[in-house]
Amino acid sequence: MTTTKHVLKQWQNVPFTSVEIQDNFWRPRLEVIKKTTVRTCLDQCEATGRISNFSKAAGLLEGEYEGMYYNDSDVYKVIEGAAYTLMLERDPELESELDAIIDKIRAAQEPDGYLSTYFTMKAPEQKWTDMEKHEMYNGGHLMEAAVAYYEATGKRVLLDVACRLADHYDSLFGPGKRHWAEGHEEIELALVKLYQATKQERYWKLALWLLEERGKGHGKGEIWDKPEWGPAYCQDDVPVRDIEKVTGHAVRAMYLFAGMADVVRVSGDHAYVEALQRVWSHTVERNMYVTGGIGPSVHNEGFTHDYDLPNESAYCETCAAIAMAFWNHRMNLLFGDAKYADIVEMELYNGALSGISLSGDRFFYVNPLASKGDHHRVEWFHTSCCPTNLVRFLPSIGQYVYTGTHDGIVINQYIGSRADLKTGTGKKITVKQKTNYPWDGKIELTVEPEESESDISIQLRLPGWCKGYRLSIGGELVFALPENGYLELRRNWKSGEVILLELDMPVEVVRTRAEVEADRGRIALRRGPIVYCMEQQDNSHLSYDGFAISASRGVYVKHFPELLGGLTTLTVSGEQPNEPPYTFIPYYAWDNRDPGFMQVWIVEADNNQLYDF
Amino acid sequence: MTTTKHVLKQWQNVPFTSVEIQDNFWRPRLEVIKKTTVRTCLDQCEATGRISNFSKAAGLLEGEYEGMYYNDSDVYKVIEGAAYTLMLERDPELESELDAIIDKIRAAQEPDGYLSTYFTMKAPEQKWTDMEKHEMYNGGHLMEAAVAYYEATGKRVLLDVACRLADHYDSLFGPGKRHWAEGHEEIELALVKLYQATKQERYWKLALWLLEERGKGHGKGEIWDKPEWGPAYCQDDVPVRDIEKVTGHAVRAMYLFAGMADVVRVSGDHAYVEALQRVWSHTVERNMYVTGGIGPSVHNEGFTHDYDLPNESAYCETCAAIAMAFWNHRMNLLFGDAKYADIVEMELYNGALSGISLSGDRFFYVNPLASKGDHHRVEWFHTSCCPTNLVRFLPSIGQYVYTGTHDGIVINQYIGSRADLKTGTGKKITVKQKTNYPWDGKIELTVEPEESESDISIQLRLPGWCKGYRLSIGGELVFALPENGYLELRRNWKSGEVILLELDMPVEVVRTRAEVEADRGRIALRRGPIVYCMEQQDNSHLSYDGFAISASRGVYVKHFPELLGGLTTLTVSGEQPNEPPYTFIPYYAWDNRDPGFMQVWIVEADNNQLYDF
Repeated sequence: MTTTKHVLKQWQNVPFTSVEIQDNFWRPRLEVIKKTTVRTCLDQCEATGRISNFSKAAGLLEGEYEGMYYNDSDVYKVIEGAAYTLMLERDPELESELDAIIDKIRAAQEPDGYLSTYFTMKAPEQKWTDMEKHEMYNGGHLMEAAVAYYEATGKRVLLDVACRLADHYDSLFGPGKRHWAEGHEEIELALVKLYQATKQERYWKLALWLLEERGKGHGKGEIWDKPEWGPAYCQDDVPVRDIEKVTGHAVRAMYLFAGMADVVRVSGDHAYVEALQRVWSHTVERNMYVTGGIGPSVHNEGFTHDYDLPNESAYCETCAAIAMAFWNHRMNLLFGDAKYADIVEMELYNGALSGISLSGDRFFYVNPLASKGDHHRVEWFHTSCCPTNLVRFLPSIGQYVYTGTHDGIVINQYIGSRADLKTGTGKKITVKQKTNYPWDGKIELTVEPEESESDISIQLRLPGWCKGYRLSIGGELVFALPENGYLELRRNWKSGEVILLELDMPVEVVRTRAEVEADRGRIALRRGPIVYCMEQQDNSHLSYDGFAISASRGVYVKHFPELLGGLTTLTVSGEQPNEPPYTFIPYYAWDNRDPGFMQVWIVEADNNQLYDF
Repeated sequence: MTTTKHVLKQWQNVPFTSVEIQDNFWRPRLEVIKKTTVRTCLDQCEATGRISNFSKAAGLLEGEYEGMYYNDSDVYKVIEGAAYTLMLERDPELESELDAIIDKIRAAQEPDGYLSTYFTMKAPEQKWTDMEKHEMYNGGHLMEAAVAYYEATGKRVLLDVACRLADHYDSLFGPGKRHWAEGHEEIELALVKLYQATKQERYWKLALWLLEERGKGHGKGEIWDKPEWGPAYCQDDVPVRDIEKVTGHAVRAMYLFAGMADVVRVSGDHAYVEALQRVWSHTVERNMYVTGGIGPSVHNEGFTHDYDLPNESAYCETCAAIAMAFWNHRMNLLFGDAKYADIVEMELYNGALSGISLSGDRFFYVNPLASKGDHHRVEWFHTSCCPTNLVRFLPSIGQYVYTGTHDGIVINQYIGSRADLKTGTGKKITVKQKTNYPWDGKIELTVEPEESESDISIQLRLPGWCKGYRLSIGGELVFALPENGYLELRRNWKSGEVILLELDMPVEVVRTRAEVEADRGRIALRRGPIVYCMEQQDNSHLSYDGFAISASRGVYVKHFPELLGGLTTLTVSGEQPNEPPYTFIPYYAWDNRDPGFMQVWIVEADNNQLYDF
């Protein structure tokens, strides 16, 4: 093992409220989220008893608890997502609806601060007995929602509920108190978020304590006892500082690592840094699909063995892709390396985005990379974590676009927007970003520092897929080479100065490592951040897996502003004379028309005469 | 073995006289060839006795034969090249100098037509005894020069000499006459050229007979007797129709295959077609460098075993790269497949072009892909085939740019130019091509058919390196997919209609097949048709082979209009913190400054943490 010293860059998260998304790709999607997805999710939460569970727990309504023990979390996640959409435009009607729900939540909180409607109503005597029962998972989502709603509206009601809950946890758990290894991580990152909003140190310290509890034999409950699950299922098999490999349930693992990355920003514990680096490599280099999807198996909703990346049976839960973005965003802030923002981008345009229909009201829980035509988005799930994760992930993308450094700013994602940013030393600068990304690699940035001639470092992410680029300021070519994946421009910026970054965005033929059995003899097409697939709709003359393409074929690239919300297709020649062409669409856009087969990894035609004589 | 039916397309060669090169890349080079290289070669031929050998053989001058027995050929080749340069601009002074040389050549021809000054002067009794003594090789070059000079000037003197010589051959050799397997092929393709110029069928038939003589035990002479050479050295080991693999001396092999491709256009013999396809695959897929260089070994100036592609000791004779272009141009005409024009392009911008200095007066015979700094271009060679091949190859590139089909035209190379073209059915069309190729993938073609609304097929080559492209006519995107590597546009063209082809031209990271031992763990950079190298001049902080680069690094692409004749450099970050960047220049441009190391295949830095924990 080589030990590398990892410098902690400690970049600053930019609040989603500082960034106004204005482009043609994301802005319309955010409008759909606001108009349709939030509405759909609120209606489903209402219809499935998720909201009335709170009223019932509070005694405001008669009736039994309905649904799964983690259903509270969905309500919290919709509130969090709805809060982000308020950034687009305040909405008194929506806010009053949310406020009413928040009142019910507050009412359902027990006098000591405890809050989990399942246990309050169904099994109060079983509180804190089975660590898999999502009590703190629910609580974590409440805290995230509370912070978001407070930041979006300035309203403290839910934040106070969250603090009372956190204080309740703090009274029960911690050094010298009782043990707890939460079965579904989430609380750790949420407590750090609550700490950041309230500056109460006890919250991040509780998060650290919860992390340190893991892997030490404290876990108790159904899954620990079942031999087919065991502690590795919920990352309770080794102390977190000793983690080497990603195991178990994918979403839980990602939330754990995100929490570790949050905590180590404050704790500075180098053992955590090393563990995060190790497990990141293991996840990304051996256990991630080309789409950014993770967790191949339906059995444990998670990881199996290295390079096990089947296509048709790929589980790739939408939540896992989103959680992968959460973790990688935090890794980017911690280490200041663009390779983590590359993964965020990969999820944004592929693995996570595929989870939602263009209409915004149908969802994938499972995101395979191949389908015979029998896998479709639906309106809701019994366990509906994915829709309610999409509804909070997508409207928050503003925070992934820009980042603050000690003496400058970072452009992490190329999304047309306007942002009011601040360096660590307090210098203010407004950035206007214009681009047709992801369809075009040209990005125009106009900077307006508050004080003219302001010495500010501006770092531009050079995406990992990009091999060639040119950079100019005010029309003049400037030389800049990437360090940690960033092109840094440092000068006394004048107001209105224009930076033009031109990224080569060719069509790429992708092959996996030879170890990935499922993709041997197959290729995929990628262009910029977009992974492509073939759908039956555009290729009706072909049958599932009954075709092949030559990697050496030229690809015709065409943008269709009206097709599936506007997208760029790729087209290649058929393999046989007079055969119709093969057309590819972005993977995220599949299954938005009539059902049919879909393939990401295409059998490669043998166009090599080499062994033929 | 799979038998594929190969359709013979029989495209038409466009005379170099119909194409005016007007771009910024080739036009200045052709001016240098005309002004400097032709002059240098003529002076060297004069100074080394190559020209006076003719005067001496004719009895016009006292003295001994000087130099090697193939020295006549250099004079012919310079005349051929000078003839091509007259296309740029007629030049009475140069023509009168050439006419004077031609007079000497004519005077040196023996009464029966025989012409080889070495044998006339030194060993008349040994004529036609050793088949390796280049008698017909010299004759072939005379024929090529004669046809070129006739086409450029309309003057017949040299053409008559060539015909008398061909008739002399025809009187001695052929069915029922004596056997002959020429040791250095060249006569075969020259006889077909003479046939095309004179329409005398006996010339191509003699070429066919000469091809059929090979591999049947008729070869006699020094090389056949020496065990280290043997018949395979000059492709006399198997009958040409049975050839499976490329063997022996690289230039001879290429000239042979070029001659076969010429002859089969007339003969239509399918066994030749199959043999050409087989040996092309074997050459290109197992025995060609990334630069298009062929023939790795100094020992036989040729081929060794499959995948033997050492870099520092690469022989890669300039003539072999040029001959590879000759052969592939003919394959393109025969089969109408762009993959052959890809090889022509590869030689034009890399393997062949590296043979000449930017100044036009220094030459490489040997083109390694790595050098410690001890390999330099020189002014002339004792065996000077390479300079005199460059002087005839480069000014003739007009004929590689366009091709005629039965009912249309083909744009094979993207070189700014104006061409008056004709389809097989006689329709005339003028094409104006504007492009910054090879630095930019944007090509604008303006067509002017003689008759408006003329239904003409226009095929645009989609280079093999190009993965993504867009095509428009009159500003409107049009859909076209490649067939055999060509995008075909068929319509009633109006005069002045503009076709815009935009080829993605990203920086590519190239790896060889695993079988190529010399390049394991190494990568090369390519952009469009240009293969890059690192030279010490731009990387003085590095030592030969003492560095590595990461394939994942972004590459800064910048054009320098003043550097080395104007070129685009690639720059990547150093591997160590604070290390200066690494700069790449096009391979063709190396060794035009102070001596220093050069590398095409760079050790790949291990940026994979995969096996590191």
